[in-house]
Amino acid sequence: MPKKVLLDCDPGIDDALAIAYAHGSPELELVGITTVAGNVGLDHTTNNALRLTGFFGMDVPVVAGADRPLVRDVVLADEVHGGNGLGGVRLPAATSGVRDGHAVDFIIDTVAAAPGEISLVAVGPLTNVALAVRKEPRLVEQVREFVIMGGSYTRGNRTPAAEFNVLADPEAAAVAFGAGWRTTMIGLDLTAQARATAAVRGRFAGLGRLEAELISPILDFYGRHPQYRVEGPAVHDPCAVAYALDPGMFTTVPARVDVEVHGRFTSGMTVTDFAAPAELHNAEVATVLDTERFWASLFTALGRVATGMA
Amino acid sequence: MPKKVLLDCDPGIDDALAIAYAHGSPELELVGITTVAGNVGLDHTTNNALRLTGFFGMDVPVVAGADRPLVRDVVLADEVHGGNGLGGVRLPAATSGVRDGHAVDFIIDTVAAAPGEISLVAVGPLTNVALAVRKEPRLVEQVREFVIMGGSYTRGNRTPAAEFNVLADPEAAAVAFGAGWRTTMIGLDLTAQARATAAVRGRFAGLGRLEAELISPILDFYGRHPQYRVEGPAVHDPCAVAYALDPGMFTTVPARVDVEVHGRFTSGMTVTDFAAPAELHNAEVATVLDTERFWASLFTALGRVATGMA
Amino acid sequence: MPKKVLLDCDPGIDDALAIAYAHGSPELELVGITTVAGNVGLDHTTNNALRLTGFFGMDVPVVAGADRPLVRDVVLADEVHGGNGLGGVRLPAATSGVRDGHAVDFIIDTVAAAPGEISLVAVGPLTNVALAVRKEPRLVEQVREFVIMGGSYTRGNRTPAAEFNVLADPEAAAVAFGAGWRTTMIGLDLTAQARATAAVRGRFAGLGRLEAELISPILDFYGRHPQYRVEGPAVHDPCAVAYALDPGMFTTVPARVDVEVHGRFTSGMTVTDFAAPAELHNAEVATVLDTERFWASLFTALGRVATGMA
Amino acid sequence: MPKKVLLDCDPGIDDALAIAYAHGSPELELVGITTVAGNVGLDHTTNNALRLTGFFGMDVPVVAGADRPLVRDVVLADEVHGGNGLGGVRLPAATSGVRDGHAVDFIIDTVAAAPGEISLVAVGPLTNVALAVRKEPRLVEQVREFVIMGGSYTRGNRTPAAEFNVLADPEAAAVAFGAGWRTTMIGLDLTAQARATAAVRGRFAGLGRLEAELISPILDFYGRHPQYRVEGPAVHDPCAVAYALDPGMFTTVPARVDVEVHGRFTSGMTVTDFAAPAELHNAEVATVLDTERFWASLFTALGRVATGMA
Repeated sequence: MPKKVLLDCDPGIDDALAIAYAHGSPELELVGITTVAGNVGLDHTTNNALRLTGFFGMDVPVVAGADRPLVRDVVLADEVHGGNGLGGVRLPAATSGVRDGHAVDFIIDTVAAAPGEISLVAVGPLTNVALAVRKEPRLVEQVREFVIMGGSYTRGNRTPAAEFNVLADPEAAAVAFGAGWRTTMIGLDLTAQARATAAVRGRFAGLGRLEAELISPILDFYGRHPQYRVEGPAVHDPCAVAYALDPGMFTTVPARVDVEVHGRFTSGMTVTDFAAPAELHNAEVATVLDTERFWASLFTALGRVATGMA
Repeated sequence: MPKKVLLDCDPGIDDALAIAYAHGSPELELVGITTVAGNVGLDHTTNNALRLTGFFGMDVPVVAGADRPLVRDVVLADEVHGGNGLGGVRLPAATSGVRDGHAVDFIIDTVAAAPGEISLVAVGPLTNVALAVRKEPRLVEQVREFVIMGGSYTRGNRTPAAEFNVLADPEAAAVAFGAGWRTTMIGLDLTAQARATAAVRGRFAGLGRLEAELISPILDFYGRHPQYRVEGPAVHDPCAVAYALDPGMFTTVPARVDVEVHGRFTSGMTVTDFAAPAELHNAEVATVLDTERFWASLFTALGRVATGMA
Repeated sequence: MPKKVLLDCDPGIDDALAIAYAHGSPELELVGITTVAGNVGLDHTTNNALRLTGFFGMDVPVVAGADRPLVRDVVLADEVHGGNGLGGVRLPAATSGVRDGHAVDFIIDTVAAAPGEISLVAVGPLTNVALAVRKEPRLVEQVREFVIMGGSYTRGNRTPAAEFNVLADPEAAAVAFGAGWRTTMIGLDLTAQARATAAVRGRFAGLGRLEAELISPILDFYGRHPQYRVEGPAVHDPCAVAYALDPGMFTTVPARVDVEVHGRFTSGMTVTDFAAPAELHNAEVATVLDTERFWASLFTALGRVATGMA
Repeated sequence: MPKKVLLDCDPGIDDALAIAYAHGSPELELVGITTVAGNVGLDHTTNNALRLTGFFGMDVPVVAGADRPLVRDVVLADEVHGGNGLGGVRLPAATSGVRDGHAVDFIIDTVAAAPGEISLVAVGPLTNVALAVRKEPRLVEQVREFVIMGGSYTRGNRTPAAEFNVLADPEAAAVAFGAGWRTTMIGLDLTAQARATAAVRGRFAGLGRLEAELISPILDFYGRHPQYRVEGPAVHDPCAVAYALDPGMFTTVPARVDVEVHGRFTSGMTVTDFAAPAELHNAEVATVLDTERFWASLFTALGRVATGMA
């Protein structure tokens, strides 16, 4: 039986790959996509989720969530993802609409309906997750696992100290890490190992429309960002899907992670204490990626998506 | 037509008086009570709301909300309100149960169903309000007015800088004050003018069971707190109901109110700038209470409640 | 034998009055004036101290100190005190020069040379005092008393939460309040009781050049500031001299005072806890001024200065 | 002509090696040692400086400085350096005494007496440096260079975010980095490349009393600390001396470094922005050490010290 995944995201270039990856993996059943403001505004992230699922030929509910962070003002990353969130790529208009209701309730209800079965994978700012945890504290006990793409244990990307998803809503991240479950943190130290180098990109060649109309244009755009020019763009969000699919690709280390919400220069930093006593551990922090297996797994999945789209 | 009031509260001794006050005022229609963790835990505040409405003979939905603050850990005020929140007073068990659903949705749906008609009066920590605003941003445009008991523009009560309701959930208060509506702040500077002195308490004498079984015992308990021993306890929450009932009892001054969430000694302070430019104003801050009219109005209302209970 | 006073100041309009007050009080011996950046830059405050002591016919060393706060960037109050710090008043050029050496060493050495005899009265930002305490911790035991004009236990003047002298160097104020001595805090709540109303100002009439060339012009300038227009300007700094002269004019209350250095809206606030346990008390906070005695004392002193200037 | 070095330190195990290194390098002239509270209290660091200079046969003034941080309470590292700061090693009693005066004045006066000639090398908390900069702003223009051992651009050692020297006095570090000169930061990322592995330690064998009575016992003690057990202890402070001696051993990158003083989990972090615009650069951050040259240089110097001690 495939593992059920609920994906909370803000598409977003690497989110697009994460959705395709989940869709193309028979070991996973994507039971829903919830959207949040992040890389771009909520209207864009929701619309992108709808267009992407249509483009991939998926039948999965898309539910819109929070349009701004828990406490602070909106921070976007449109300089990385383009004004529309997909590096300027125009996918065909969505054929199905957004599901009624709010992402927060969709998360709560979906998890409650299948206790212990749902992997909640969050690859955007954690606003929806925090609202859900506060509205329904039992969520914490009911999920199968909670995996995020976010944070870092050395340096950030949006600021020297903070990774974008956590920086964009530090209070929500603090709620998520403090919720009582064990968060699996797939942070920048890990995703920096998953770079779409020229060699990697060569392997996308056989993917037909998927490659020509989506992957190549978005990676071209992504790769022009100064921080990606040298080593190639890190495909962050697919790494979180990979963890849900096969944790064996990852080395993880238990740690205490606290989110700094008060610093002047460090707000949004995931302060990671590997030396904390075990009773304070609240996270499994991914440190090493089996790169070969990761790319093999991703290419296989994308191949299935490409075939299904024909 | 009476003004419709939705009361978000954490009963709580002064909350008990606020509920009775609203119930006994024909100018107001109490359309619902939502509860939040605050003076005591959510189980107690919800149970107290049910017992109080039963005791007063009210027919009003009670809906439970957040059991902890938006971001931080729980802070209680049980040293002021007693372990059960009502100074040890044991009211008869509730005859009706809590309404299904979550306070956040009840607030959103009730306000949306009667746009421009509902006065949202919040007299506990602002967790439910913040969650509602974040889940449904249109709430801000749909309420008739938003009145809180909370904050202060000089000194606090729980700390030298902060009033309890704001201290207990500073991030929620920051969301509420920053939501885009104009918050009417009935803070400590105002409620310090509404003290249940011996003279005031003498006037409760004719209220029968209401006085004997509830008001006197809770005020006796309340008045034993060190900060209330000299001048008598301030009946905070009824002041917010009074504002909804008759704003003419109050002098208010427009101001910019920012909630400090970062200070070491000042967290939860409502920093009130009366000199801010008008375009930054986000609050009407109550400064002077017409004490005579307030007590007259409250006693009249309590008299009606006492009569109805007979 | 007169009480020896070392005045650390940033003249400044009310500093000018404080210097004259100390000079005209035979109960006090002003053993030195140290200057600090504050109301205006250090060059101005030092030059003003020299011009003022010359104008008053004083023979007292003036020693320059810190030209910026302990940690932060300079904050001035030249909108209150005018570009030159004396509301545009041009006193005759100084006839004696600044004393060699640094204010920090002058404070340390002067106090060490007469242990238990020197009242250190600081009426500007506390940078010099903090540097002195850190350079020579024994200073704390060697002073007779430490009196400041600064802080507030309700509201600020420069921001809603903070008084200017503390706001301008919060870390220095934190060092000063935490140094181990008991700080006498003459804050805004006290100095607001010392307003140069029209009635008060009428009594300056007989002071000749002192009135015509200094006091009236500076108070005219001072009184034009928006916060002083209604009730007249508060003459802050002379109140600290008054305390050194005759503490009997003041009601003080012991308290714990902590300086907020981390808040976003509250930096520089003197958080004053009157309910703190006695073992945590670090301050005597002035609450009530005997206004009649204060003005009588000040006018008598200024009369002596005026006579001496003839 | 040798380069003149003024060493501000808190001996301290690695400080002991740094002093010996400077003493044994004919390219350097150690013009003075100033001490500060840090690894252990000021009494210990000063006494250790005196005993070490005596043991090494040095004739250099030792001047005591600040006994506590600029604003905060004392933080020690005696769990790393032993109660006496030298891992329990008892050197012979000092034969010469501490120089009169305060480290702050010694720094100011020494640098002012030879403008442009003195390298100020600080390998403890930056309290003395900050006090000196604030007392004499011209110091910044008068030094030849300012080199610190402190900080990090990835992770800390005392906390996940902060290195000990900066953590121990974050406000002083903020003053130092903000002073207007360009700080050369030799942080943990660099010193982690200078580990006293077993192979390294074997090369100390020929150093006679220097090895037997000091280096081996202190490195044995140092190496027992959990963070040093695996890879061997990093000899932090000698790296800063090495930079003064021969910057060619180092790769450095210009950056903007800001010290976090407000965070809850990140206080004392040196937030290092390599992508900051050039006009904001305030530091040269050492990133790569030529390890071979470093050890060769250090062993040669220690050899000279050992010989001189015979």
